[in-house]
Amino acid sequence: MASIHTQNSSIASFIPVHPESHFSIQNLPYGVFSTVQDRNPRIGVAIGEFVLDLAKIADMGLLPASAPVDVFSSSSLNRFIALGKDVWRETRVAIKELLAEGNQTLQADQEVRDRVFVPVNDATMHLPVDPPGYTDFYSSKEHATNVGCMFRDPANALLPNWAEIPIAYNGRASSVVVSGTPVRRPNGQLKLPDAPRPVFAACRKLDYELETAFVIGKPSTLGTPISGEEADEHIFGMVLLNDWSARDIQQWEYVPLGPFNSKTFASSISPWVVTMEAMVPFRVPGPPQEPAPLPYLAKGGNDTYDIRLEVSIQPETSLASATICRTNFRYMYWSMQQQLAHHTVSGCNVRVGDLMGSGTISGPAKDEFGSLLELTWNGKEPVRLPSGEERTFLEDGDTVVMTGWCQGDGYRVGFGEVSGSILPALTPEFE
Amino acid sequence: MASIHTQNSSIASFIPVHPESHFSIQNLPYGVFSTVQDRNPRIGVAIGEFVLDLAKIADMGLLPASAPVDVFSSSSLNRFIALGKDVWRETRVAIKELLAEGNQTLQADQEVRDRVFVPVNDATMHLPVDPPGYTDFYSSKEHATNVGCMFRDPANALLPNWAEIPIAYNGRASSVVVSGTPVRRPNGQLKLPDAPRPVFAACRKLDYELETAFVIGKPSTLGTPISGEEADEHIFGMVLLNDWSARDIQQWEYVPLGPFNSKTFASSISPWVVTMEAMVPFRVPGPPQEPAPLPYLAKGGNDTYDIRLEVSIQPETSLASATICRTNFRYMYWSMQQQLAHHTVSGCNVRVGDLMGSGTISGPAKDEFGSLLELTWNGKEPVRLPSGEERTFLEDGDTVVMTGWCQGDGYRVGFGEVSGSILPALTPEFE
Repeated sequence: MASIHTQNSSIASFIPVHPESHFSIQNLPYGVFSTVQDRNPRIGVAIGEFVLDLAKIADMGLLPASAPVDVFSSSSLNRFIALGKDVWRETRVAIKELLAEGNQTLQADQEVRDRVFVPVNDATMHLPVDPPGYTDFYSSKEHATNVGCMFRDPANALLPNWAEIPIAYNGRASSVVVSGTPVRRPNGQLKLPDAPRPVFAACRKLDYELETAFVIGKPSTLGTPISGEEADEHIFGMVLLNDWSARDIQQWEYVPLGPFNSKTFASSISPWVVTMEAMVPFRVPGPPQEPAPLPYLAKGGNDTYDIRLEVSIQPETSLASATICRTNFRYMYWSMQQQLAHHTVSGCNVRVGDLMGSGTISGPAKDEFGSLLELTWNGKEPVRLPSGEERTFLEDGDTVVMTGWCQGDGYRVGFGEVSGSILPALTPEFE
Repeated sequence: MASIHTQNSSIASFIPVHPESHFSIQNLPYGVFSTVQDRNPRIGVAIGEFVLDLAKIADMGLLPASAPVDVFSSSSLNRFIALGKDVWRETRVAIKELLAEGNQTLQADQEVRDRVFVPVNDATMHLPVDPPGYTDFYSSKEHATNVGCMFRDPANALLPNWAEIPIAYNGRASSVVVSGTPVRRPNGQLKLPDAPRPVFAACRKLDYELETAFVIGKPSTLGTPISGEEADEHIFGMVLLNDWSARDIQQWEYVPLGPFNSKTFASSISPWVVTMEAMVPFRVPGPPQEPAPLPYLAKGGNDTYDIRLEVSIQPETSLASATICRTNFRYMYWSMQQQLAHHTVSGCNVRVGDLMGSGTISGPAKDEFGSLLELTWNGKEPVRLPSGEERTFLEDGDTVVMTGWCQGDGYRVGFGEVSGSILPALTPEFE
């Protein structure tokens, strides 16, 4: 289904990049990292198996003067992002030049190379942005239909507002964590069928949600909506997002104000933010929308992206992970432009670093479903892993790995991965 | 219903304080202000008709050394609050001493007094805290019952989870504004009865919600719940909150993920944060809870506060405002301790400056309802104002003023007010 894109494919770096590496010179995603030698978190760019240390590059005067040198020594991308689109573009051009095959500036001097290129395995990755806000949409028609079938009425699975509104809710920004952070199984209220009252217990239906999120690059003013046409100006880049979900807690708590404890215990994002500039060659049209949305949600042309996505699970006792879902971002019904136009249409303002989650990304086929809830049909049809183990929901010790990339002609523009392992629940004191 | 509290009533300040002033020496609420002469926002304390400039007082070496001098020159209280409870206590003691009747330090020197006391009318108030997060609870049984009667089933007005869970949702922190900020009527999707599809239009059912919010003073760690017993240690103070609500947008959008655009266009708070220390004398028992909550929500003793609350409306054409609601915070079913225990029980962390809204505060009597939705029973029974005008929901030009205070013996510990005027909706470009 995904097409091969050929733009930019002729550019190469003097740093060797495997064709399946996510971090080609066409990508250049930003992240925040530290090392044992230098524990100060700072900004880097991934290239092949290395992180290019932008703090050091900036100190050497090799980045555009439009960005203050110390901005690259920040512990988040927020200050850099806030400098605006011209600076993003100039910085990207400068980095691309420095890494290009023929450029000798860094290449020629082994001492310089040793200083500015950190092997990716030696880098500890930190949360790339400090998100002032985190919103989660619900924009996959397949996902919303699956959930509606399970929890409401299969005959009317999609609620009447779903095809009119890019439905969203405010998530909890404080518990957004970077890939690799262990996730503790939450305790909470569960209401068992036929029980007169809920019990307080560890979640029994712990799930992941395969998502992406876009990162706001340009703020808006309270009271002033962002139109669909203006939306791209406000988006810096994208990350992978695992919106961990406690299904049993969710089902008991979510009426009438939406999910809360079932979501707020953790949301994991990839350490690398892929810029929208890098993704331009992968723009594709989204699915048709029927009915045609209201004018403020008018659909653009190539308004989505061809991003291949995979989810794998590795039980604690297994040596290998098993891929249990392969899907694509382009299935999403509502585009990012429509999401942002809707988010701000009532006057709500956005801020630099805000995360806007896509909602679970499910495709039409069963192995394209983006959550265990859907893959196992609420636990009724266990997924069989190659190790012989079965899963309905996540077990303690399981590691969930999500990955995603755009496939070019001989190169990839990818997100790396977002992963997390499940720790057992705390034993409540009052048990 | 509210009792008269006598503790601390003998303390007096050399600054004259009217018995009905909210800003007695027993109160000493913190805010952030600037003046025409000095446009830098800085921290102040309200006393009678004045703001005591803590930045200047700190520069003079009159505040405890435990707080860095420059913390009082901040544009929000966050840094001061983060210093912790011992610093709050020491600072409060020092300010109280400086303002006490017999103390000559500030009193004796007219030049000093002119410099450090700013008439409250000369102070521009700013947002007192920069909230990293904003959560809104739904903790008034009367409010939840009223809403359930109107929108669901009067026979089963309270949903089954309401008496088990201090229901809450994540609000939007970016659009929290300080009292006095005009609020633009939002545009959004409205679904008229019997219409096949929604229209995009200005909200026709614009409402306020009378609330308080508590301010987190001590952060928690992701994965580590705060127990009900520990909760008070994490609360710095309280503000008044008007959680503006677009009822028609809300009704169409809120299923299944909760309110979004209907709330995110603005939430107004009072400029003064009343500390929990100042409110100790006004602790009272909350209402009985039946069924007894699950153990993690075990009820404390005097776990709520006797705070008198009023809402008034002033139409643009009126010279005076009319009080349309008088109620009390002590009616709230779920306590702040229970709210915080629930918020964190699944592992969600809180941060300094987080706002935790109470939810609409309604009492049992009709004139104690905390929203127009309830007072007018969804527009069916208009409220008549003394000017002869009627209101079902808010009209352009209306100013809503909320106030609240604890009544001591001859003094008040009050919040001042939170006010906002309604601006007409923007005309959408594509109309």
